[in-house]
Amino acid sequence: MRATVMYGAGDVRVENVPDARISEPTDALVTVTRAAICGSDLWPYKSMEPSEEGQRMGHEFIGVVEEVGTQVSTVKEGDLVVAPFVWSDGTCAFCREGLQTSCLHGGRYGFDGVDGGQGEAVRVPQADGTLVVLPVGVDDELMASLLTLSDVMATGHHAALAARVGPGKTVAVVGDGAVGLCGVIAARRLGAERIIVLGRHPDRIALAKGFGATDVVSERGDEAIERVRELTDGFGVHSALECVGYEQSTFTALSIARPGGAVGRVGVPQDEAIPAALPTFFDNVTIGGGPAPARAYIEELLPDVLDGRIEPGRVFDRVGPLDDVPDGYRAMNEREAIKVLIEL
Amino acid sequence: MRATVMYGAGDVRVENVPDARISEPTDALVTVTRAAICGSDLWPYKSMEPSEEGQRMGHEFIGVVEEVGTQVSTVKEGDLVVAPFVWSDGTCAFCREGLQTSCLHGGRYGFDGVDGGQGEAVRVPQADGTLVVLPVGVDDELMASLLTLSDVMATGHHAALAARVGPGKTVAVVGDGAVGLCGVIAARRLGAERIIVLGRHPDRIALAKGFGATDVVSERGDEAIERVRELTDGFGVHSALECVGYEQSTFTALSIARPGGAVGRVGVPQDEAIPAALPTFFDNVTIGGGPAPARAYIEELLPDVLDGRIEPGRVFDRVGPLDDVPDGYRAMNEREAIKVLIEL
Repeated sequence: MRATVMYGAGDVRVENVPDARISEPTDALVTVTRAAICGSDLWPYKSMEPSEEGQRMGHEFIGVVEEVGTQVSTVKEGDLVVAPFVWSDGTCAFCREGLQTSCLHGGRYGFDGVDGGQGEAVRVPQADGTLVVLPVGVDDELMASLLTLSDVMATGHHAALAARVGPGKTVAVVGDGAVGLCGVIAARRLGAERIIVLGRHPDRIALAKGFGATDVVSERGDEAIERVRELTDGFGVHSALECVGYEQSTFTALSIARPGGAVGRVGVPQDEAIPAALPTFFDNVTIGGGPAPARAYIEELLPDVLDGRIEPGRVFDRVGPLDDVPDGYRAMNEREAIKVLIEL
Repeated sequence: MRATVMYGAGDVRVENVPDARISEPTDALVTVTRAAICGSDLWPYKSMEPSEEGQRMGHEFIGVVEEVGTQVSTVKEGDLVVAPFVWSDGTCAFCREGLQTSCLHGGRYGFDGVDGGQGEAVRVPQADGTLVVLPVGVDDELMASLLTLSDVMATGHHAALAARVGPGKTVAVVGDGAVGLCGVIAARRLGAERIIVLGRHPDRIALAKGFGATDVVSERGDEAIERVRELTDGFGVHSALECVGYEQSTFTALSIARPGGAVGRVGVPQDEAIPAALPTFFDNVTIGGGPAPARAYIEELLPDVLDGRIEPGRVFDRVGPLDDVPDGYRAMNEREAIKVLIEL
């Protein structure tokens, strides 16, 4: 079969790999029908050391179940399923708490002999705990939005929950990438009264406004912090969604939070330490977030996608076949595309 | 009147200062009957630059109202009152949210012409929003425990809330000082099933056990982290209370939190950045806390003190008159005393 392999920074190839096949009784074999390129795929795209073996890529996909192992009971051949961006058993202590990203028997696509999602098929381990059946056809018009449940929409929702968004709250979203845009959707969905988006790309800002952003701050650094304070009577926001992962964006998110407010971090931190932002401690600002337990959120978000109440699929502004993946990475890395959808 | 003034690191004096007196219609004049030395008073004691003017000290006290301004309505002459460690108006946006430490019209004792608590009397601004009447006599046997409501017990409670302690949770308390000990009391009170205290001073550990600690970890650094993991099936704790404020103790607290767990920070951070602890983001560990809104907690904690269900006054292991304050600082700084109570 054909699948995406990264051999180093800027070196992504679609090539022949061994066919995916069932190897454990808890596996499902899924033929991929839609996949996506994630903002987090760009980190290795920028920095990966050259590798002869290569790294299988992709962790956002929808597909059709071709075959299941003998112990799989919740999905069957022919089901259309969405895969959260990590696989999980659904039964361990952390899965039961709804934190499937910390599953004791889970793992990541593309590692340890598991296929990546940017390919023709994937062996999905722990299929019962991982896959969610979609009650639509393979080419349903909602497919783009349904695909976002695997990661980006769940991640925006996670940022909003970690930032304690709720009815009447004033929210800021740091970052106008696909995650930030989904953060806007999530904040609106959770009842935020005011949603300030920090970004400067006209197409993304237009989309953010379409999703419910009420204010735009295009300044950066200290000027952005100052501007958010001006917009909030000097107080700052109840909830700041950090959707980038750089030290600067984290500093901004911490600095614009109101006393007693919360920062929800979902951008993969590129620096391990959380930067010094004086108000954080003295203002009792809470910092939460991490990888989103998409599996826990799919059931909550799915009805809103099916009913058209949220349209996160609009973050995809480029669609192509599997062979388009390498140029899709380039386009996203150069900010030419917000997010790339792959149709198989 | 006589009051405590710090003139530099290690230089604390009790000396004559101008008498406290009402200056605003919202003030109350309080004659201090009990005061305390706080762990946070030791930070300037270790580091303050020499000053000719000096700094008035103390922010934990109980006293009798001598006189009130014309606009004060909730306390009257003769009332015995406890003062939270900051004063606050009780009416601003943050006070209404229960975050009186961020009061828009509040402030700190010892600054801006307001007396410190380690003296014979204090002008308390915003008396209606600040002071809480105690329904006991001036020399009630519960006085030591009631005094802890001004700061240290409220701070332990805040750490526990920020760390999301609740019934059945496994908790670790980093630090065996007075705040850590009150953190143990708070964790027990909130229903924690298991309370691991990290500390090594035999007298403090004995007190922690008396307050409900179930396990003691006397190791430090990486060994302490390893030991807590051993005690918790490798997972770490649901709730970690950071009651010290050093980078090392913060790192420890972050490193022993379980995936999905929370760290409650109340030790005044001596480093602004939050140290790099890899699991923090990937394990979805939340970091909360800051200065405790003691004013918000007094009403909740007071009944438990009055009924003897909690005995935080046991953290005081030294009692002396006002003239004992300078040597009290020395004794606490050298860890000869856990916490010093001043009787006036």
